[in-house]
Amino acid sequence: MTKERLAKQMNFILEIDKAKNIFRQTYLTDGNRKENDAEHSWHLAIMAFVLAEYFEEEIDVLKVMKMVLMHDIVEIDAGDTYCYDDIANLDKAEREQKSAQRIYGILPEEQGKEYLELWEEFEEGKTKEANFAAILDRLHPIMLNLASDGKAWLEHNVDKSQVLKRNERTLNGPEEIAEYFLGIIDEALKKGYLTDKENNN
Amino acid sequence: MTKERLAKQMNFILEIDKAKNIFRQTYLTDGNRKENDAEHSWHLAIMAFVLAEYFEEEIDVLKVMKMVLMHDIVEIDAGDTYCYDDIANLDKAEREQKSAQRIYGILPEEQGKEYLELWEEFEEGKTKEANFAAILDRLHPIMLNLASDGKAWLEHNVDKSQVLKRNERTLNGPEEIAEYFLGIIDEALKKGYLTDKENNN
Repeated sequence: MTKERLAKQMNFILEIDKAKNIFRQTYLTDGNRKENDAEHSWHLAIMAFVLAEYFEEEIDVLKVMKMVLMHDIVEIDAGDTYCYDDIANLDKAEREQKSAQRIYGILPEEQGKEYLELWEEFEEGKTKEANFAAILDRLHPIMLNLASDGKAWLEHNVDKSQVLKRNERTLNGPEEIAEYFLGIIDEALKKGYLTDKENNN
Repeated sequence: MTKERLAKQMNFILEIDKAKNIFRQTYLTDGNRKENDAEHSWHLAIMAFVLAEYFEEEIDVLKVMKMVLMHDIVEIDAGDTYCYDDIANLDKAEREQKSAQRIYGILPEEQGKEYLELWEEFEEGKTKEANFAAILDRLHPIMLNLASDGKAWLEHNVDKSQVLKRNERTLNGPEEIAEYFLGIIDEALKKGYLTDKENNN
């Protein structure tokens, strides 16, 4: 029984290796290649405990870390959906739910259910842990985009308004982090990495 | 003051992006390319909570996860040292200590000290969290090596005795995991991925 249980867990661990081949639109800080889901998730998990002090004291950091480490596993079947691609985002939820059912289904039943619920909590974004995780998930590519000379933004002609809309949670989050985020946007505008159509730039 | 503190933390977060360019000897499960430190660390952090039930109840899983997420950051300056390269391992500790001082030194002082001590605890391997982290660190490449048809083992002519020696902790760890590990070794020997010089194979 235990042997069978462990086998399921190890099969899950091997299956999620595929997240290392799911590439995002964001470039690494050196601008040489795009980042994959495993790398992105690793970075978010470290951000979670490095920046935990800015969030409410009673936040469950372990839960936030589990969320960010696993939040993109659904992309193994569903693929990465670029956040500013409105058409691809129409059926994103459906594709990802199907993928989640399959991948978390590899695990022992109650464990798979626990992680599936954690992913759903992240997607809903209502709890304080899900909100923290979502802020990290939105802020991280912004940091990498500025560091890589705006490469991903320039490739997709991204406008300031799109980034601000996507980062509403960041702006409503801890003051210091919101301020840091706005500093990035200012610099990106100055350097011409983002357009600013509202102001005809 | 807070602004300066956050700037140091964000600089650290950007600096460790370089771990995504430090490649290990292990191949991904599909055998197509080698794995980097960020991907490896992401995988270990997930293994930590998926497999926590096999370890002592009072283990601090959050601490294990922090350890595995950050344990290879020192390789940003020191490079990856292949575990079966005896000569490169002679000055590994010195190179990595120097790197740790620089990289954790980017953070606010007390936070950098905390993470440096966590890394030293991992390296010493004496506490139960460090032991758990080390078992994951040793077991993970074994799983990937079998899945990728022994590619890394064959490239380096690795012998069974070397893998067993490196995995002493795994063999002395939780029974189910030790058994799973020995199953991998058996299969690797059957498929000719490892030599077995002791038995003239």
